[in-house]
Amino acid sequence: MTIELTRPATDAASATTAELLARHRPGYSLEAPFYSDPQIFDLDVRGIFEAHWLFVATEAELPEPGDYVTVELDRSSVIVMRDDDEGVRAFHNVCRHRGSRLLDDPCGSVGNLVCPYHHWTYGTDGRLLHADNQPPTLDRSALSLRPVHVRAVAGLIFICLATEPPSDFDAVMDRVLPYLAPYELTRTKVAHQVDIVEEGNWKLVMENNRECYHCDGHPELLTAYFPLHGYTADDCPPRLRPVWARYEQARADLTASCARQGFPRERMRELENRPTGFMLDHAPLDGAGSSYSAGGEVVCRRRLGVIADDRFGDLHLHLQPNSWFHLLSDHAVVFSVLPLDATHSRLRTTWLVEADAVEGVDYDLASLTHVWNATNTQDSVFVARTQRGVLDPAYVPGPYSEVEGDVEAFVGWYVNRLTAWLSR
Amino acid sequence: MTIELTRPATDAASATTAELLARHRPGYSLEAPFYSDPQIFDLDVRGIFEAHWLFVATEAELPEPGDYVTVELDRSSVIVMRDDDEGVRAFHNVCRHRGSRLLDDPCGSVGNLVCPYHHWTYGTDGRLLHADNQPPTLDRSALSLRPVHVRAVAGLIFICLATEPPSDFDAVMDRVLPYLAPYELTRTKVAHQVDIVEEGNWKLVMENNRECYHCDGHPELLTAYFPLHGYTADDCPPRLRPVWARYEQARADLTASCARQGFPRERMRELENRPTGFMLDHAPLDGAGSSYSAGGEVVCRRRLGVIADDRFGDLHLHLQPNSWFHLLSDHAVVFSVLPLDATHSRLRTTWLVEADAVEGVDYDLASLTHVWNATNTQDSVFVARTQRGVLDPAYVPGPYSEVEGDVEAFVGWYVNRLTAWLSR
Amino acid sequence: MTIELTRPATDAASATTAELLARHRPGYSLEAPFYSDPQIFDLDVRGIFEAHWLFVATEAELPEPGDYVTVELDRSSVIVMRDDDEGVRAFHNVCRHRGSRLLDDPCGSVGNLVCPYHHWTYGTDGRLLHADNQPPTLDRSALSLRPVHVRAVAGLIFICLATEPPSDFDAVMDRVLPYLAPYELTRTKVAHQVDIVEEGNWKLVMENNRECYHCDGHPELLTAYFPLHGYTADDCPPRLRPVWARYEQARADLTASCARQGFPRERMRELENRPTGFMLDHAPLDGAGSSYSAGGEVVCRRRLGVIADDRFGDLHLHLQPNSWFHLLSDHAVVFSVLPLDATHSRLRTTWLVEADAVEGVDYDLASLTHVWNATNTQDSVFVARTQRGVLDPAYVPGPYSEVEGDVEAFVGWYVNRLTAWLSR
Repeated sequence: MTIELTRPATDAASATTAELLARHRPGYSLEAPFYSDPQIFDLDVRGIFEAHWLFVATEAELPEPGDYVTVELDRSSVIVMRDDDEGVRAFHNVCRHRGSRLLDDPCGSVGNLVCPYHHWTYGTDGRLLHADNQPPTLDRSALSLRPVHVRAVAGLIFICLATEPPSDFDAVMDRVLPYLAPYELTRTKVAHQVDIVEEGNWKLVMENNRECYHCDGHPELLTAYFPLHGYTADDCPPRLRPVWARYEQARADLTASCARQGFPRERMRELENRPTGFMLDHAPLDGAGSSYSAGGEVVCRRRLGVIADDRFGDLHLHLQPNSWFHLLSDHAVVFSVLPLDATHSRLRTTWLVEADAVEGVDYDLASLTHVWNATNTQDSVFVARTQRGVLDPAYVPGPYSEVEGDVEAFVGWYVNRLTAWLSR
Repeated sequence: MTIELTRPATDAASATTAELLARHRPGYSLEAPFYSDPQIFDLDVRGIFEAHWLFVATEAELPEPGDYVTVELDRSSVIVMRDDDEGVRAFHNVCRHRGSRLLDDPCGSVGNLVCPYHHWTYGTDGRLLHADNQPPTLDRSALSLRPVHVRAVAGLIFICLATEPPSDFDAVMDRVLPYLAPYELTRTKVAHQVDIVEEGNWKLVMENNRECYHCDGHPELLTAYFPLHGYTADDCPPRLRPVWARYEQARADLTASCARQGFPRERMRELENRPTGFMLDHAPLDGAGSSYSAGGEVVCRRRLGVIADDRFGDLHLHLQPNSWFHLLSDHAVVFSVLPLDATHSRLRTTWLVEADAVEGVDYDLASLTHVWNATNTQDSVFVARTQRGVLDPAYVPGPYSEVEGDVEAFVGWYVNRLTAWLSR
Repeated sequence: MTIELTRPATDAASATTAELLARHRPGYSLEAPFYSDPQIFDLDVRGIFEAHWLFVATEAELPEPGDYVTVELDRSSVIVMRDDDEGVRAFHNVCRHRGSRLLDDPCGSVGNLVCPYHHWTYGTDGRLLHADNQPPTLDRSALSLRPVHVRAVAGLIFICLATEPPSDFDAVMDRVLPYLAPYELTRTKVAHQVDIVEEGNWKLVMENNRECYHCDGHPELLTAYFPLHGYTADDCPPRLRPVWARYEQARADLTASCARQGFPRERMRELENRPTGFMLDHAPLDGAGSSYSAGGEVVCRRRLGVIADDRFGDLHLHLQPNSWFHLLSDHAVVFSVLPLDATHSRLRTTWLVEADAVEGVDYDLASLTHVWNATNTQDSVFVARTQRGVLDPAYVPGPYSEVEGDVEAFVGWYVNRLTAWLSR
């Protein structure tokens, strides 16, 4: 047994995990240790979360220089901050003196970064500006805050803790950007943000998001969707033919609207075989077709960005390993999953509205957040129940249905990425 | 270090435990690791609890088809259920799709077993009846719920998680059944059930039950017993001679009553040297001699089964590893211990009265439960205090007194059984 | 992996820890595992806390025979008790029968020590006086309570769990005693005692105590000190020259007072290179110069012992590994740190006043405790924040400033002592 420095997983654990990954049966859920073992959790932190780009915040959370959010990932705390030049920076939240946390709060605003213990003072660029009672030989330049890779893309902020981040990220973002740009998320404000501690491994949270096979459990969400889940044009039963026709019409309308506005419309789906796995789809919604609400009507009167049409469906983006995004004409709702331990995860949900929208005038907070608050709560029950089940020695991986393809793609991505990392 | 699949204990831990078992000193309490070590706890789960028959419920808890209780043992959850043919069945509480728990509640009633996640549906016999969106190639017959061994004996339900349960169980039950049958526990109802989380290893809970050396701490319980504990006919002091005579008379009366009714009366005690260790004794009670109450009077007006005599003493059955039972003319109180972790256990106490007895008419709940609720609470303090002590590095096993023979037998049984399992 | 008997740390952990100790860089804080690793915590318990003398209580807490306090150190509980001959004794709090804790409470008073489980009875000297139902062959003399080394020095009680305690303790106490004796702490009473659970490794609590570089965070405490921290006679800025002169005068007055009373005055500092590392200094206080209060005035009207002068500064004693003491003319405040786990510690603070001082007449409890209650609370925030920071994988040891010499000495002592223990 080696000393648990900050990294408990051993070579033996890595070898055994590699074996478990190698014997994964495609089309089936993962074996139990991937959802519960503390050592595999540690490998997930290192090989997935510290090795890939993670969506962690929005630019709307950092309107002014000195504004910051702190991101807690396993034992790491990262300060994501708008610097004095209006750029976005990220640093480890650790003083270079005796290691004190610099910032305690999840978000806030500062001039410089002053350690509350002995007042060592750093600029918003991370440089050590001041420290008392030091010998003249002290090399301040060697004591800057340790930086973290960061990207701001269309108002979404990503960090990567790896020394060398995956190189395909910028190319993926170049392809995604034309879809996101019209929504101008940099010109939004945070209407609401909620954190839920999910009682499940982070992969169970992601798998749950990647399918709608369970959507009978989401009555509020279902009102936005055409009730055709699981059917194709070929096997759609006669009683649903009118719905199918309505859906086809909405799809055509959406295609026309995109063309009229000069926006891309094609679906992209590369979930499994690249470091920055992603899927992007622009789907029509049922009813009024505008937003997540009982009748599909807008829940905010101000449209986002340059979108010219209320009835503009749902542009959704899925990113591996930890995020998904719904962009609508009137608001955006974005999701970030971070692991807490082998059986707990944090899901952060952020609702964005146009920067000048006024609560109580342009939108009602309860109406804006109703569908996804309800959906998140329902999902957290599904996740917790599945976590308890996969901990049972009687659990064996079961077969995915025909409508769980994106779950399978997520699991496949995970198996690929962790395998690659273990053999690096 | 190997991956903690669902089983953390290693070969090295097994070897060391076997050494510790081999050096156990008869007549002395166990060494500290048996009461506290997480790896020995894991071996206890596998080698004792998953390898032996466990008392987990009564038939009175499952009056109708579809009624169920769930039994939580370490990471396992087992559904014990009355099926559509009125039989008792047991299944692992894990969906064969992606592993979700099927039932969340400790007890309830269902028609079929429907997974709340994606609505896979199983019959009360465990067969998969329905699953949406499956390819035509899906072999439903391979996706039944995984069964667990179960026996219902005289209204008491036992499960065994082993592939091959101990073969002596049925023979022991054949010997015990004539004693239990007259009480007709299948024709009772649950008057009350209480769970206590004991802050102690499961063996400390059992050891505490197996002796009355500490019964000075149970003033309520003592009123039912002749105050002769620790004395024999030979060393009974003069001041207790009248009590001794009263005891001898009560014993003779009980023997006559059994003979009159045609019930067996002989004590049986095979606690230590068989897989299904057991002890059964029918002892007179002091005072009115009928039940657990301040004066020994009945606490329920309806007698159980075919018992013809109110003053019928206490038939008590002890079973290794996890249960004890008191059957009286007017009620039964039965106890089941399940381990939670190395230093916590669950004690479930269930009071049974005749099926047609009416609360407030035939019995008063507070009076019925008074003695054993008080006794359980007192015992839980003893157990917690002993747990804290045996965790202390200064603890060394101490000698049992002359009245702790059944504790010694329990410990001997445990040493035998775990040794046998480790060398299987 | 070996069985966790009561000692989880393995040979491999010891070897790796020895390597980490060997590469410690003088002048820098310790590497992260020393503040967080559970196995190094276990080595700390064995190699530091169980191998050295620990300050755990005051004689004022045990005024009468039978009075006791229980000391919880990791899994050990030790009874510190005044025996029937007025001496101070210490025993392991474990019954020799089946291991029950004898005493549950943190303090109290008893005649004999009677185990609450089966009434085994021990005298205040630890001998087994009585046990029921034993065979005549029982050797009671082999079943005394297991003793623990104990010393009472000038009213302060120290225990050592080692088989052979460090041999330099008595010599250090001989040197310290002349400084402490005039305060006659054996003739005090406990005015107040507070326990704080610090959210930090015990070494972070000690390091925080060993410097005043952070004292800007202690406004209440600072009123007692001359505002000259970090300055010497050579670099004291002109604006502080008057303060420096005031300080020099107070120092001269204190020296004169000591000489007049025949008390020793010299500073002693041997913090790093002996088992019983210590530092003792008698420093003047600012303002009235008497005590910890806003203006430096006394907070108790009765002086301690034979001290003849209210304005008598602060005699402070630091002992490795776990204590510090402030003795003033009107009260004493003494501190004891015990580790709870790798990231939690208990700080006990005890305020002592003259034995006949009356609350509400001679002292006001709020005024007496104001400064150190406030200071402790502020320090607990510093400690918790540093603990969170050093857990971060981004933490690297940083350089001590010129005013953190006693922190460096503490760390050096720790490195020396644990290294010596590992190579024993």
